[in-house]
Amino acid sequence: MPRIEAVDFFYLAMPRIEDIGDGSQDACVVRVAVGGKTGWGECEAAPLPTIAALVCPMSHSACHPVIESVLCEKLEGPADLPRIGDRVRARSLDLLQAEHVLSGIDMALWDALGRLKDAPVWRLLGYRKSWPKLPYASVLFGDTAPETLAKARAIRAKGFRAAKFGWGPFGAGTLKADVDQLHAAREGLGRDGMLLVDAGTVWVENLPAAEKRLKALAAVKATWLEEPFVSGALAEYRALARKSKVRLAGGEGAHNFHMARHMIDHAGIGFVQIDAGRIGGITVAKRVADYARAKGVTYVNHTFTSPLALSASLQPFAGLRDHTICEYPLEAKDVALAITTNRIAPDADGEVMAPDAPGLGMTVDPARFKPYLQDVEIKVGGKALYRTPAI
Amino acid sequence: MPRIEAVDFFYLAMPRIEDIGDGSQDACVVRVAVGGKTGWGECEAAPLPTIAALVCPMSHSACHPVIESVLCEKLEGPADLPRIGDRVRARSLDLLQAEHVLSGIDMALWDALGRLKDAPVWRLLGYRKSWPKLPYASVLFGDTAPETLAKARAIRAKGFRAAKFGWGPFGAGTLKADVDQLHAAREGLGRDGMLLVDAGTVWVENLPAAEKRLKALAAVKATWLEEPFVSGALAEYRALARKSKVRLAGGEGAHNFHMARHMIDHAGIGFVQIDAGRIGGITVAKRVADYARAKGVTYVNHTFTSPLALSASLQPFAGLRDHTICEYPLEAKDVALAITTNRIAPDADGEVMAPDAPGLGMTVDPARFKPYLQDVEIKVGGKALYRTPAI
Repeated sequence: MPRIEAVDFFYLAMPRIEDIGDGSQDACVVRVAVGGKTGWGECEAAPLPTIAALVCPMSHSACHPVIESVLCEKLEGPADLPRIGDRVRARSLDLLQAEHVLSGIDMALWDALGRLKDAPVWRLLGYRKSWPKLPYASVLFGDTAPETLAKARAIRAKGFRAAKFGWGPFGAGTLKADVDQLHAAREGLGRDGMLLVDAGTVWVENLPAAEKRLKALAAVKATWLEEPFVSGALAEYRALARKSKVRLAGGEGAHNFHMARHMIDHAGIGFVQIDAGRIGGITVAKRVADYARAKGVTYVNHTFTSPLALSASLQPFAGLRDHTICEYPLEAKDVALAITTNRIAPDADGEVMAPDAPGLGMTVDPARFKPYLQDVEIKVGGKALYRTPAI
Repeated sequence: MPRIEAVDFFYLAMPRIEDIGDGSQDACVVRVAVGGKTGWGECEAAPLPTIAALVCPMSHSACHPVIESVLCEKLEGPADLPRIGDRVRARSLDLLQAEHVLSGIDMALWDALGRLKDAPVWRLLGYRKSWPKLPYASVLFGDTAPETLAKARAIRAKGFRAAKFGWGPFGAGTLKADVDQLHAAREGLGRDGMLLVDAGTVWVENLPAAEKRLKALAAVKATWLEEPFVSGALAEYRALARKSKVRLAGGEGAHNFHMARHMIDHAGIGFVQIDAGRIGGITVAKRVADYARAKGVTYVNHTFTSPLALSASLQPFAGLRDHTICEYPLEAKDVALAITTNRIAPDADGEVMAPDAPGLGMTVDPARFKPYLQDVEIKVGGKALYRTPAI
């Protein structure tokens, strides 16, 4: 009977981290060993606190280090994954960072299980087919409207039919600056391009600030306005949704099923965006996909990091034919691209799919990411609880 | 102009941590220096990941280490606290553990501000008076009903008029075992004692399991049933509230204002229980108290640790005369009692109050907690990001 024999975390980073909204500058990569197979995953999380939550001393019965609830557990089939997740959530209930830790482990376990069963993860999730998705190039707004125009044109020239602009100066300056940015993005993408806009929670819970931008968003025919507010601001989301011709998107901040459900039930969103590297892994993400489908909300992955994370994020909705939009990181830093030897590239029709290959279908070569590996040591009471594992 | 000159975290722990639901076995204590004054606070959080989130390298613009957003900020008056909190939340949006880190810092900053202004924190929060509260002895269920009976009698003998029993075997075994536990607690407390029951999220989101206990809870005249489910299970809370004669309590898991608001708006609870050491500090807890009052929900502190945490947890609702119930840890471990030289003891009427003294009104003597101090070192790339500070 296959059991979880090892769980190793690796902290990777670019030599220099810039103070910009680019989540691909470092990575928290997870390796598991199960029944002689290796699986890989990635937490979309601050690496150091995530590693600390993996190995910290127990505080009490509802505050165990995550690794204690995972090591030696059996992994025979898909039903073991929710069981292991429930175990982690119960035993680390008061350890806030635990759900980010679990996310990468769950991904890696699905990868290992797929390799044990010689099946892609999406098939183990119950899907018969991995449907093509329309990738949108996910980039930051330029610092100025002309820069955004140039970015949009370049995206179009690369063959993308959809693009999302987010963060950067958007929402923090004048209304006019935002309107200029939106028109620049539309002009660069062309009239038939799908334009998505990501406010990056800039208005926190300030409804009037968001309302001021609705007219311009409708004028440029944006498909969605993403994260006008923080994930918890359900009432403000709902009030904005009632006034907006452009549908709202959100959910990337959800770190458990319930938070995503609250957005679907109470926030009036049209698109729920789930990061499998934050919500508790592929297992929880699939549960959200099922719920979203039942409630008529479109499921979209949130991915701003590596090809490994992209494959993991595609799995939960790979088999949903009508949920066709896929976030596709286009400006990922070298560290994110060094994790796998293969990538998920758009096909001749400009579409992407979750790989039809065992596990997550990605090949990880630690020698490739070694140049980015951070040497970490955590000691409590003279005892090393964590040292960067051998690759 | 006073500025935040230093922020130091201390990890304290008992020599041996037991695998029981007792959150007082370790502590994450915070010391700040502001304008020549020292303030103290406590995160109700796993110490090691919390320290890691304080000092970790930046991942991107929404994933800064918490200390970077706090050091050197000005602290002239109460309005600076929400400003600093907003700054931390925006700059550490994707760092899950950040809100637990902020909680202890916010407490310590209020303590320092009170000492700078020579005023108790509750007065700085806008209250004119600190009203007496009825403390309930907060203990774990005995392993058996007779043990619970003995515990209840002992609590009554100490002069407590209210007690809460929680965790332990409750909810995880047979219905009969739970019924016996409830009747034992009631018998020990006497007919006029206030009996509170804490299920410690044992049913997660399993509505029927909780429903089975409603009859017995009503029969023993429990004042509330606390945490039948995890905080996010709003729909299950609401469904249970509709069927229950005993009112529901919950909210201790909330790590921001919005989560508490969701429970008030959507979960049908009668009591919202806020841990100032988790929700983002006294600042956010006060915001919840204001909201609860406006919505007709009773605010109650959640405190299972030290007298320092108890004082901090009393401040946000000290001035609410009609919100009279106060959680009072009765089985706190030595480490929790070593943090302060004074305590908040019930008066002749068996009531407690937030101290009428500058800041949190508690005296911290690091020499007292030194025996419990854990020696911690966190290194990344050969550089020590954290070493246990000098006391």
